[in-house]
Amino acid sequence: MSHPHPELNLPRPLAKNGVRIIALGGLGEVGRNMAVIEHDGQLLVIDCGVLFPEDHHPGVDLILPDFEYLEDRLDDIQAIVLTHGHEDHIGAVPYLLKLKRDIPIVGSMLTLALIEAKLKEHRITPYTLGVKEGMRERLGVFDCEFVAVNHSIPDALAVFVRTPGGTILHTGDFKMDQLPLDNRLTDLRAFARLGEEGVDLFMTDSTNAEVPGFTTPEKDIAPAIDKVFRDAERRIIVACFSSHVHRVQQVLNAAEKAGRKVAMVGRSMVRNMGIAAELGYLHVPDGVLVDVKKLDNFPDDQVVLICTGSQGEPMAALSRMANRDHRIDVGVGDTVLMASSLIPGNENAVYRVINGLMRLGANVVHKGNAKVHVSGHASAGELLYCYNIVKPRNVMPVHGEWRHLVANAELAVQTGVPREQVVLAEDGVVVDLVDGVASVVGAVPCGYVYVDGSSVGEFDEALLKDRRILRDEGFISVIVVIDAATGKIAAGPEIQARGFAEDDEIFSQVRPKIEQALAEATGNGVTDSHQLEQVMRRAIGGWVGGKIRRRPMIIPVVIQA
Amino acid sequence: MSHPHPELNLPRPLAKNGVRIIALGGLGEVGRNMAVIEHDGQLLVIDCGVLFPEDHHPGVDLILPDFEYLEDRLDDIQAIVLTHGHEDHIGAVPYLLKLKRDIPIVGSMLTLALIEAKLKEHRITPYTLGVKEGMRERLGVFDCEFVAVNHSIPDALAVFVRTPGGTILHTGDFKMDQLPLDNRLTDLRAFARLGEEGVDLFMTDSTNAEVPGFTTPEKDIAPAIDKVFRDAERRIIVACFSSHVHRVQQVLNAAEKAGRKVAMVGRSMVRNMGIAAELGYLHVPDGVLVDVKKLDNFPDDQVVLICTGSQGEPMAALSRMANRDHRIDVGVGDTVLMASSLIPGNENAVYRVINGLMRLGANVVHKGNAKVHVSGHASAGELLYCYNIVKPRNVMPVHGEWRHLVANAELAVQTGVPREQVVLAEDGVVVDLVDGVASVVGAVPCGYVYVDGSSVGEFDEALLKDRRILRDEGFISVIVVIDAATGKIAAGPEIQARGFAEDDEIFSQVRPKIEQALAEATGNGVTDSHQLEQVMRRAIGGWVGGKIRRRPMIIPVVIQA
Repeated sequence: MSHPHPELNLPRPLAKNGVRIIALGGLGEVGRNMAVIEHDGQLLVIDCGVLFPEDHHPGVDLILPDFEYLEDRLDDIQAIVLTHGHEDHIGAVPYLLKLKRDIPIVGSMLTLALIEAKLKEHRITPYTLGVKEGMRERLGVFDCEFVAVNHSIPDALAVFVRTPGGTILHTGDFKMDQLPLDNRLTDLRAFARLGEEGVDLFMTDSTNAEVPGFTTPEKDIAPAIDKVFRDAERRIIVACFSSHVHRVQQVLNAAEKAGRKVAMVGRSMVRNMGIAAELGYLHVPDGVLVDVKKLDNFPDDQVVLICTGSQGEPMAALSRMANRDHRIDVGVGDTVLMASSLIPGNENAVYRVINGLMRLGANVVHKGNAKVHVSGHASAGELLYCYNIVKPRNVMPVHGEWRHLVANAELAVQTGVPREQVVLAEDGVVVDLVDGVASVVGAVPCGYVYVDGSSVGEFDEALLKDRRILRDEGFISVIVVIDAATGKIAAGPEIQARGFAEDDEIFSQVRPKIEQALAEATGNGVTDSHQLEQVMRRAIGGWVGGKIRRRPMIIPVVIQA
Repeated sequence: MSHPHPELNLPRPLAKNGVRIIALGGLGEVGRNMAVIEHDGQLLVIDCGVLFPEDHHPGVDLILPDFEYLEDRLDDIQAIVLTHGHEDHIGAVPYLLKLKRDIPIVGSMLTLALIEAKLKEHRITPYTLGVKEGMRERLGVFDCEFVAVNHSIPDALAVFVRTPGGTILHTGDFKMDQLPLDNRLTDLRAFARLGEEGVDLFMTDSTNAEVPGFTTPEKDIAPAIDKVFRDAERRIIVACFSSHVHRVQQVLNAAEKAGRKVAMVGRSMVRNMGIAAELGYLHVPDGVLVDVKKLDNFPDDQVVLICTGSQGEPMAALSRMANRDHRIDVGVGDTVLMASSLIPGNENAVYRVINGLMRLGANVVHKGNAKVHVSGHASAGELLYCYNIVKPRNVMPVHGEWRHLVANAELAVQTGVPREQVVLAEDGVVVDLVDGVASVVGAVPCGYVYVDGSSVGEFDEALLKDRRILRDEGFISVIVVIDAATGKIAAGPEIQARGFAEDDEIFSQVRPKIEQALAEATGNGVTDSHQLEQVMRRAIGGWVGGKIRRRPMIIPVVIQA
């Protein structure tokens, strides 16, 4: 296996008969999935998603793939193929289209409906090309065939890309539920046929490669949902992802059986389920759905709410219910069903919500105490099937942290793919497929691009480092006004601090030290603002580091007046 | 079950024949365990631990129990009984002793050795009373009997407190491993005997009450450890808690079998294992242990390191190895064994370490891919045994978040304890045991006490809220100097911002707006600093909220010079 190295250079130009693959996101993290395929000067983008920030990205709303590599080559992009409608695969499309609005978007009916709704919010009307499984479309030099795959959102597709330089099968996100709710299987017959034809590079979803065995079928959580409906004394409040059409379907089915009315709560839930119902992916039993405003017309034991917030998002309906900050006042006898995964990093937030709801007297059913969730990704056992059916020449694990990619690579090796034909790459690493052999040939710059409010990519690691210091230690700002004419202190030192100490009293200790240090410096004829700021910084730094044993951000300000 | 309410009042004085129980920590969170038992004007403290902060406590080092209730009653405290030597049970002792140095500390030999080492760092020499299982000690009015319990640290004790007002059995942290490494079982025969005598209130560890079944014996991870030793090509690096003597024992045993040398890395690991070995709790095979500095004398495939950092702590040895910031340069062929739990909230940090080590080429064996950890707490099945053996009159679940306490309470009810005799209380809630009946009678103030650097309890929620704003949005400070004589602007506006925008360019947009707003205000004769600051705040706030869609902290400063 080839390991990427930070010392990788920019690659040489691609051989005329070669295919180049660069992930601009999704390799080394779970999210912002995006791959660029290149042949003969043309580019094909597969997915363009967002990454949700972790605690070391304080205050960041979203993280985008790094488009820098594409910026001079926007005209070469033939299309953006979207494998399915999840945020981590489509969420960054608006930001890419802002660079060039007329790049065609290719995807299945549901996927296009979801991206169009998103683009509408950004006031962009895209050029789209609807495709479905079994279809074959020429996108520039790329001859693309689409294959049905099963995932935690309907209408997901894998894409097989034929080029004169070689073929690539990209699974997108997928699993292999053999009894899916919508009877739409991952099409292993197509995988077999394409394998027979020859798959030069197999790009496979690594998310669950560390998980042994097989992902449980979606159907198998029905008993746990039924039990909730049997046992619930008053309202049932279901929290799940707003794109999980099949999960919502199961709740609707259970509600119909139980004679309960269902209301959707939360903007994205209402919007997505509206789209899914309109397009026929969600089958709403007659008379089951009601507007949330009409819920008061029904007794509590005939009511179901389906809402967002299963990850403990503080502004979502569920967190607000837990904090008694929502019109739905959860109380004794209510049952909350969190029918969702627990994404690593969200544990504390989710447990805060669970504890809050339980404190109000609700019964909370979740992944930790009932079988109310199954994953949307293929486990190790399923991936072995894939490798054995496709028999690819080369493998490049995608979608995952390093540990996931490594686990997926090991599975490929176990099925007989030669170790040197399994390419481990991270974001920005350039993989060339030439004469049937894939290898790492270099790397292009590929950083995190942060979205914060309305600004995109306008701040970087240095700013996040500042935020981490402010978060952990707060700051002290000390201002003095120097009389420009005399070089003497005209006002100050004025001390401002936040996140550092409650009591301004404490500054009486350091104020004389600053005054003395400044007096010495100005006495020695120092008048330069920058030098005086350094003098103040040292005086404060010595005090907080020694006396208080803390390291706040120190901001000395000299104003010449 | 009694639910605590925020509107609970201070309780009336305790009845002469009653026993009062107040948890000052540990009920509503996992950590800072501390219970106070009162009878006839005397107090007994059971445990005094710390809580490790979460992401919504930015920059906090530790969280202590709230000692406020004790501050006027320090002379009434007869003793601090420590059930075992974990930080969440002993870590706050130094802070309590700083209020009164001569409160006797009662505990087992290992527990006392660990607290004495900790107190030495705080330059406190405590008064101690060593006890062991089977012993009975009179501590003021409290007649205490100690019972062996099994936990993830040796020498843990439950305590049975006899008072004229009733009896209390407090388990401390425990599980019921039936084949423990040291053959020291949780003494169910003693539990049975005390149950026969009569347990008026049973205070039980709730940590694993949500987990069905039985906690796997510590012995059962030996095969996974052996496999690591069989398969490892070069070094083996084991990360685990620095108090987990039995886990380290298993590693030492495996190393002896494999003919490898072991070095301890990390201050707390070296210190604690030194104590454990000296007192006979850790049996170091002859010639196995070497100093880390001598490791270079041995080939890589004859070496084991045992270090801290299993929770992804950034300054611990393991994180530093993952970041190539440690003298041990982890590389291809090395095996890292993370023989520890993954405490909720630490997932991202731990996965960062795992990914980092794997990127360096190491094979990482952890809880997620091998049976290399078992819990230290009794699961639901074990707790049922306890309730059935003790047959307590009243039950008060301790040690856990609300969801854990509720789960534990349900177990008690299932074994036949009347629901109204199961008391659910949070920190500060006052439970009185009178005439054999326990009930909530009020609450005392009980907040979080934060330790940050050398300051204890000197800041509060308001400061943490400031830090959260600074973390998420940064700040903008705008300074103007007003000529005190003329009321005109003498200098500024000078804009300082951190964590907000990289590019000062952006402020050219708002500077004229501030100048204009100030000119208007001063033109209208406003000279008051506070009023001018409000003018600046509005001008900046409107700009960032509207134009940039962000909400940084805004700090306007007017200096009269």
